Amino acid sequence: MTEAELAKMNAIFYPKRIAVIGATGSPDKVGFNLLESVITGGFKGEIYPVHPRLETILGLKVYRSLDDLPAPVDLVIVGLNQFGTVEAVEVCGRLGVSGAVCVAGGFRETGEEGAALEKRLIEISKKYGIKVIGPNTLGFFNTEAGLDTTFFPMRLPAGKVSFVTQSGGIGLNIIAKSAEEGLGINKWIGAGNRSVLEIADYLEYLGEDPGTAVIGVFLEGVEDARRLVRSAGAAARKKPVVLYKVGKSDAINFAAMTHTGSVAGSHRLYKDSLEQFGVYLVNSVAELVASCKALSISPLPRGGRVGMYTYTAGPSIMALDILGQNGVTVPQFREETIAGIKAIIGENPPVVLKNPLDAVGLGFQAETYGRLVEAVLADENVDIVATFGCVHKNWRSPTEELITAGKNSGKPLVACYISTVAGCAADRQALHAAGIPLYISPEEAAWGISAMVHFGTRLGGAADGNN
Amino acid sequence: MTEAELAKMNAIFYPKRIAVIGATGSPDKVGFNLLESVITGGFKGEIYPVHPRLETILGLKVYRSLDDLPAPVDLVIVGLNQFGTVEAVEVCGRLGVSGAVCVAGGFRETGEEGAALEKRLIEISKKYGIKVIGPNTLGFFNTEAGLDTTFFPMRLPAGKVSFVTQSGGIGLNIIAKSAEEGLGINKWIGAGNRSVLEIADYLEYLGEDPGTAVIGVFLEGVEDARRLVRSAGAAARKKPVVLYKVGKSDAINFAAMTHTGSVAGSHRLYKDSLEQFGVYLVNSVAELVASCKALSISPLPRGGRVGMYTYTAGPSIMALDILGQNGVTVPQFREETIAGIKAIIGENPPVVLKNPLDAVGLGFQAETYGRLVEAVLADENVDIVATFGCVHKNWRSPTEELITAGKNSGKPLVACYISTVAGCAADRQALHAAGIPLYISPEEAAWGISAMVHFGTRLGGAADGNN
Repeated sequence: MTEAELAKMNAIFYPKRIAVIGATGSPDKVGFNLLESVITGGFKGEIYPVHPRLETILGLKVYRSLDDLPAPVDLVIVGLNQFGTVEAVEVCGRLGVSGAVCVAGGFRETGEEGAALEKRLIEISKKYGIKVIGPNTLGFFNTEAGLDTTFFPMRLPAGKVSFVTQSGGIGLNIIAKSAEEGLGINKWIGAGNRSVLEIADYLEYLGEDPGTAVIGVFLEGVEDARRLVRSAGAAARKKPVVLYKVGKSDAINFAAMTHTGSVAGSHRLYKDSLEQFGVYLVNSVAELVASCKALSISPLPRGGRVGMYTYTAGPSIMALDILGQNGVTVPQFREETIAGIKAIIGENPPVVLKNPLDAVGLGFQAETYGRLVEAVLADENVDIVATFGCVHKNWRSPTEELITAGKNSGKPLVACYISTVAGCAADRQALHAAGIPLYISPEEAAWGISAMVHFGTRLGGAADGNN
Repeated sequence: MTEAELAKMNAIFYPKRIAVIGATGSPDKVGFNLLESVITGGFKGEIYPVHPRLETILGLKVYRSLDDLPAPVDLVIVGLNQFGTVEAVEVCGRLGVSGAVCVAGGFRETGEEGAALEKRLIEISKKYGIKVIGPNTLGFFNTEAGLDTTFFPMRLPAGKVSFVTQSGGIGLNIIAKSAEEGLGINKWIGAGNRSVLEIADYLEYLGEDPGTAVIGVFLEGVEDARRLVRSAGAAARKKPVVLYKVGKSDAINFAAMTHTGSVAGSHRLYKDSLEQFGVYLVNSVAELVASCKALSISPLPRGGRVGMYTYTAGPSIMALDILGQNGVTVPQFREETIAGIKAIIGENPPVVLKNPLDAVGLGFQAETYGRLVEAVLADENVDIVATFGCVHKNWRSPTEELITAGKNSGKPLVACYISTVAGCAADRQALHAAGIPLYISPEEAAWGISAMVHFGTRLGGAADGNN
């Protein structure tokens, strides 16, 4: 991505002034919601609603046309139908606007007529150098700029993960799941028809973006798979890239084609090439969010050897099963560690001293829990530690102890408190602030660890190294 | 299961009087929480705490010993250590108690000494005919009796699904996930060491239990796999049985053995035999809960052909991908259906009219959404319909329309509203009450449909039949 292109992308994602064309006063209309989103998202720049007749909408002065705006805008959000969209983008181009979010469907995904219209949109973009997000998209969020360009007014928690999603609906699924998991988002981009800006462009941009520490991708399939793989690989050299692609079943090719005009392509081919380029592939939205969460909250381990502490065996066994399937090493503890554990729970405790360490009833209590986790963290065979437990209404969870243990050891720590989302909200906030990802499901904890080990042993860390 | 055995199991799960031995006054102790659970769970029978010195605990009169109780009890909850547990069960046996929940660990999972103690427990059980739940277990819930015998005081929403779980921790994970998903539970049983009552016994009991419409199982592995498979199969002839077994990875065999003394066994062997007996196998807690939810809320389809309606393609593509992997049929719509759709959204709509039907912006609005779902439900090629959408702060979701459409068609309907758990609580309650399972994730919706199709085409329904 050239400096000039990067500057244009930054003008789009961090605009000073925005126009919303197609803004209206009825909450049942897309145009109203596009405007409400920009306002409620917390955007601090100038907002110019455009409508031929209305005077004000949502308290903002309305302008008659794009030509009537009081100052040049960087970004126009277009809430018109497909025909109005193409006209508006031409005006934007003429006015030197950097980018346009085009929400309308009705382009190549619908047949020949729509394809011709989309071709016209691409020509306009080339003629004026204006970038188009979409069409047939929800638009984007940029929490750093307090900017929501979608017609779903909401405010996302800020964070370091950016998502690119080929589907708006799955993109909203990712947003909802991130909210449940306490995962902050930096940017979220719905790619739509990708007429002008391709998923590859977004990946190149996010690869350069200082606000983005981790990139998550939901992919159906693209025409230029080679470019996608190259761009994802280039981004993956700079920061972790986690990707979920649908299409294991052949059934979906036709459906994907009539969605955003894409083809799902051979799943195996995508998988092999993306993995070769260092992209981390996952199999569900839950795994995508769990992986991005671990990568954005915790430092990476310096090796791939996982130690585990629990007082309830099942969750550790489930995690062990998933780690085993992902080829992650769960080594034996050193003699010194076993001795250290005995010093805490007794010389002949009624438990088998192994990794995962299950201290059963001896290890419930928060102080003991913390000391046992410290013992496991201290093991030289271990690069990262996962701990498991259950939230109990009358018992304190070992949150303080985990924060102290993590800080003292310098090794990454992942916690799983079996609970509902609401049941561990305060603990999660404290643990996340201390760089310890908290999960309520052992499966998701295991996915998070697998992702950390993948990138820890690939980027800078040494697999099974003696640190 | 003989009549006498069944009567004993019913005395345990629906006791008239309960004793809690090991009850204490300190909230940090297991014994306190066992008693609090029985009280806060809503149990309506008599509760007798037993402690050698205390006068009252949590407002209840305390008895000096099991021999001092004012009336015979059906169930004793034992909150003592492993040695005290064995002694207490012997007294219970002598007194003719039907069953004992034994929480303590320290038995065969810890080595030779514990194994000898466990052997003694089994002998006592045989001598007196007393059933032991556990040891090394969380115990059980029975929402029909308002009974929580675990040391996790909580009140589960009542429902028609019963779970048997080999792990207490994963069992709590299942409870938390069920709460998030709005899934009511009938009984929940932590099997623990299974010294006396095996998972097979619980399956036989739940197979006969009129309150249980669907059985969900979490399994690590048992010694007598043949008996387990036979019992699961027998239950599956009466009601849907959904089972999640860990152990795809070899890593877990040792860990499972030192947990509840079980061996994970060959995953492939379990899978093949269980499937042959009609048990439905799933791959995660999320899939277990999603499947049980669909099966307990909705009637089964009379065939396996799925119609889909959406205005956001991605979620339907993701569902299609999962259905495709599960071998579920998504047929083409009939000519009459296409004509009916055109009558609603126009003769030449800018969308491809196929299954899944994606009406894009034309299908947002709740009334149109409802009419299009009715059109898909009416298709004679379709036995069950899945619908997708996104919860929007300013727009009404099509809940009323879906309830009406489902009622009028007589075919099962599954809805996916992309949202957080909190974002669709009222809609979910209304839809569930109308027999329509609501999911917030398209993956979970697809899992639910796959389970319904599995049992719909196996139990009474005809695969791809023309109903």
